[in-house]
Amino acid sequence: MAPPTHDPHCIFCKIARGELPSARVLETAEAVAFLDINPLNPGHTLLVPRAHHAHLGELPEELAAHAGSLLPRLCRAVKAATGAQGLNVLINNGRVAGQTIEHCHWHIIPRFANDPIHWPWPQGHYSGNELSQMRSRIESELESAIRASSEARS
Amino acid sequence: MAPPTHDPHCIFCKIARGELPSARVLETAEAVAFLDINPLNPGHTLLVPRAHHAHLGELPEELAAHAGSLLPRLCRAVKAATGAQGLNVLINNGRVAGQTIEHCHWHIIPRFANDPIHWPWPQGHYSGNELSQMRSRIESELESAIRASSEARS
Repeated sequence: MAPPTHDPHCIFCKIARGELPSARVLETAEAVAFLDINPLNPGHTLLVPRAHHAHLGELPEELAAHAGSLLPRLCRAVKAATGAQGLNVLINNGRVAGQTIEHCHWHIIPRFANDPIHWPWPQGHYSGNELSQMRSRIESELESAIRASSEARS
Repeated sequence: MAPPTHDPHCIFCKIARGELPSARVLETAEAVAFLDINPLNPGHTLLVPRAHHAHLGELPEELAAHAGSLLPRLCRAVKAATGAQGLNVLINNGRVAGQTIEHCHWHIIPRFANDPIHWPWPQGHYSGNELSQMRSRIESELESAIRASSEARS
């Protein structure tokens, strides 16, 4: 893994380095988890890799795997501690997706019946060959990334 | 890892085993990714572990890590293929959190300015010692899980 990057102006870098206080619940060599002080519901927890990467797409795979590995235990603990009936785990990537701090982070949000969170789910559909065309475009992007990666190694 | 579990009535188990068709974009030994046929935006992709576990909290850590490791490349590919300006990556756990298929899955949702997705973010706050009490409760749950796990191994 490349050495951790760090942005001296980033609030999550400061929290990860202990330069700002936080209500920390878990830490490992590569990540910290702490309470969001403006929770959507009490117990709303943030999981933050220590290294500064703005978006999930820029995270090294091994760091994304490490963060992923912490989620089951964090989900169980947040659910048990809050008595939640469910949880949303959410990463907002980019301002248009609701990201307000440009350091990749996971939200773990406990959910209760009749809580104040209402996220409509406006489902659309594909017509004609739109579905197969979209599949081909995503497959092509994944394949060209694999080709680029193996060319870089050779 | 325990042998993959399988629910013969689960639509995602059927898709993972090839018993139902899907517009698959990626597959590994442990997971598959395919297009949601009712996308919130075109390119909306689902990442599904092959093993049947209803919720993220029940996923073995190594499987959660594997799924996590696939997200950066999936995010890059979906963003490039759709021209999206951002992405939401979301796991809904439990009916109260919007989960409709009880087989843990990641949504990768491309986002565009002025798209039909509007998810209000009703932030609250903690008063008095509520924050420190919540932190203690979550920490206790994490610690008792570690104790239970080491007792089970000894």
